[in-house]
Amino acid sequence: MRDDEKYTNAEEQLLYLQKLLDEEDTFSLKELFTELDILSIARTLESFPAKTRDILWEYIPEEIIGEVLAEVDEGIRADYVEDLSASDVEQIVKGLDAQDAAEVLDVADEAIKTSVYASLDQNIRAQVENLHAYEEDVVGRYMDPETVNVKQGVSLEAVQRYIRIHHLLDEESQQIMITDKDKRLLGTLTLIDLIKQPQETVVDDYMDDPFTLNDQMKVSDAAVLLRSKELPFVPVCDSDGLLVGQLNAADVLEITQDDADLTLKHMSGVSDEEEVFTPIARSAKSRGIWLGINLLTAFLAAFVIGQFEAVLDQIVALAILMPVVASMGGIAGSQTLTVVIRGLALGQLAGNNKRWLYNKELWVGMSNGLVWALVVGGISYLWFSDPLITLVITLAIFINMSLANLSGVLIPLVLKRLQIDPALSGAVILTTVTDVVGFLSFLGLATLIIL
Amino acid sequence: MRDDEKYTNAEEQLLYLQKLLDEEDTFSLKELFTELDILSIARTLESFPAKTRDILWEYIPEEIIGEVLAEVDEGIRADYVEDLSASDVEQIVKGLDAQDAAEVLDVADEAIKTSVYASLDQNIRAQVENLHAYEEDVVGRYMDPETVNVKQGVSLEAVQRYIRIHHLLDEESQQIMITDKDKRLLGTLTLIDLIKQPQETVVDDYMDDPFTLNDQMKVSDAAVLLRSKELPFVPVCDSDGLLVGQLNAADVLEITQDDADLTLKHMSGVSDEEEVFTPIARSAKSRGIWLGINLLTAFLAAFVIGQFEAVLDQIVALAILMPVVASMGGIAGSQTLTVVIRGLALGQLAGNNKRWLYNKELWVGMSNGLVWALVVGGISYLWFSDPLITLVITLAIFINMSLANLSGVLIPLVLKRLQIDPALSGAVILTTVTDVVGFLSFLGLATLIIL
Repeated sequence: MRDDEKYTNAEEQLLYLQKLLDEEDTFSLKELFTELDILSIARTLESFPAKTRDILWEYIPEEIIGEVLAEVDEGIRADYVEDLSASDVEQIVKGLDAQDAAEVLDVADEAIKTSVYASLDQNIRAQVENLHAYEEDVVGRYMDPETVNVKQGVSLEAVQRYIRIHHLLDEESQQIMITDKDKRLLGTLTLIDLIKQPQETVVDDYMDDPFTLNDQMKVSDAAVLLRSKELPFVPVCDSDGLLVGQLNAADVLEITQDDADLTLKHMSGVSDEEEVFTPIARSAKSRGIWLGINLLTAFLAAFVIGQFEAVLDQIVALAILMPVVASMGGIAGSQTLTVVIRGLALGQLAGNNKRWLYNKELWVGMSNGLVWALVVGGISYLWFSDPLITLVITLAIFINMSLANLSGVLIPLVLKRLQIDPALSGAVILTTVTDVVGFLSFLGLATLIIL
Repeated sequence: MRDDEKYTNAEEQLLYLQKLLDEEDTFSLKELFTELDILSIARTLESFPAKTRDILWEYIPEEIIGEVLAEVDEGIRADYVEDLSASDVEQIVKGLDAQDAAEVLDVADEAIKTSVYASLDQNIRAQVENLHAYEEDVVGRYMDPETVNVKQGVSLEAVQRYIRIHHLLDEESQQIMITDKDKRLLGTLTLIDLIKQPQETVVDDYMDDPFTLNDQMKVSDAAVLLRSKELPFVPVCDSDGLLVGQLNAADVLEITQDDADLTLKHMSGVSDEEEVFTPIARSAKSRGIWLGINLLTAFLAAFVIGQFEAVLDQIVALAILMPVVASMGGIAGSQTLTVVIRGLALGQLAGNNKRWLYNKELWVGMSNGLVWALVVGGISYLWFSDPLITLVITLAIFINMSLANLSGVLIPLVLKRLQIDPALSGAVILTTVTDVVGFLSFLGLATLIIL
């Protein structure tokens, strides 16, 4: 049996590991973690509650702990590094490249950070300090400062020899940068051309005019841009056009992926860091905040209903039908909100596209509003045999669904302009609007028409 | 000014294009589409409503239309291919590799497909038919059947020469497969090793024991597995261990990314295909289905409320507070649901992790339930100064929030076991449960305690 075949999917791998843990099969556990690659180990650690995770760390070979740490979720990294002494951290960071070392040191205490800085190889230290000097959300913070650079006019054969002599290139650095003597980037050469083209020709012949990123660009903007390119490595230049590093597109893709994930979490009132295995106390607290915000909007809705005590007191059917009005508006609005928020994340909404979208959503809202208003009206008539209640709920559903769709476009666009994450507060604001508009129109119309 | 600098982010690029369209600047439009790469063009097309998109197609150089078509969203591809004659499709498909050709032909009529098949180069046709023979959701359907194969015992130098003579390797094929005479996969060689290692040594020395995928594996399972690897290209073998192609991990990452995106859409009642620029009629229809389902659950909730007419008729404060109970349960449940669904998608939930999760969510639900029940009770007492109403709503919130959290775990796990997408129906079932439990406990307790 080949090792890969022990588990053909992630769940089976998890079950196999749980079995080893239950049986306290120390030998197989050690063996397993020697075989798995860094990324697999990181994903595995993320698939266990903190208590089990602490046990698993023990089985990871010491020499790769640093790389695993650089790869796992920030919360898990912070938990692990928290308990370490300065000399432990020093030990772990020793063999790492600047990019990984920067990630690990990022979650350490200031005191430990300073002490470990001092122990680092001078070259790595300079690079780590350089990375740490960037803001948290810019490209420079996530780049690899190490690149393979050659000059113009060099033959492919010479480049290959240079690489062999200096033992350059690795998984994270698979692109040749062609620079002038000031380190100004002139172009890039792919490994494909380096191998495939006549070896006596010079790099200049195959130099691509490179797509570059500025080191101060926001990572989220870079992610949107990179999604429309198929480049594994992108050179990063400073504002003077000097090459300062390269960005591994996979890292950014990971961020982009997190993006849809974050949107989902934000829209459901779950905090960024919460995963399945977040401890109880931390989950309860982070979700509690959102529940509190929701409570305000729920009481706002209750307050609106409270204004119509008179009509509710007289016609109990209104109380029965209230949730239908709120719920239809809420769903219609959140459908629009989801589509618009994803469009914003993909950078698809600018200029006159917005006007088109308002138009579209108004029409979708009104046509679906009309259809479902009539359906709801019909059911209500069959239920209560009261033409006035039927009229009131039909109108209220139509109004609420039309406005819900418009709000679904308007709210995220306004929030974006105010530089507030539309996914985070969009859903709660939208629900507030659809509840308030729903109850106001339903009970308000009832007061006007029936009372 | 360098061309890339015309726009530093996707939105600016969009605005620039809109400007050219408004000014009917045919020349610059043609120039722009000559400069942009295939992926950028595809993403650009996806950022416009259908009417504008039809205009944009005109400016795309004819020789790359096929590649662009293979890259854009399936809906857009189908729209474009629909209007083409068999000879148009033939023209477009001519220069494409098997993978792209298969994608384009996938959306064509059966008649056109058959006629274009006949016109294809024999080798390509065999490959396309091979791809089409796979089910829609398996790895074989998405692989590139073309690979660079060498035998054991060959020197690196010889491999390089072989590549140069036959002009092999391209963006989509950057890995050397080492196979025996039956095409059984023995190992893979990276371009890095091919360049970096002594040229007189043989491929066997650097052969990686490859991570392979079976051609019949579900793409979604492959995505979960590949997320824990950092492999750009993965060999695909059939059940006999023979090499049949390779999978570009970027394609799968795209699918994985879609995964979080799909979850988001499903949970908000938006269909898979809906994008910002989906036409009005199609949006209205696809959202309408979800609204209809929601209507059933809303009326179920109304029906539950209807059972308590007697108590509602007497105490109007109950009608006012009803939405608070439903809303707090709904949010608490959907927080849990989101976390659990993401955990399932990442393959993190198996074996005794599940028990841990039930425990966790019950505690989170009960502790948050207790806190917010007391808060809501307090506010209700201040509002209505009625100790019985206060007691009833406090108990109801506690019960509903605790059960909401348990349902948030139970519902997706049960749906998964039934092989139903938990994201798609999870949210609507959960809302039904929290509404029904909420109204039932609130109005039921009121009937018992107050009436």
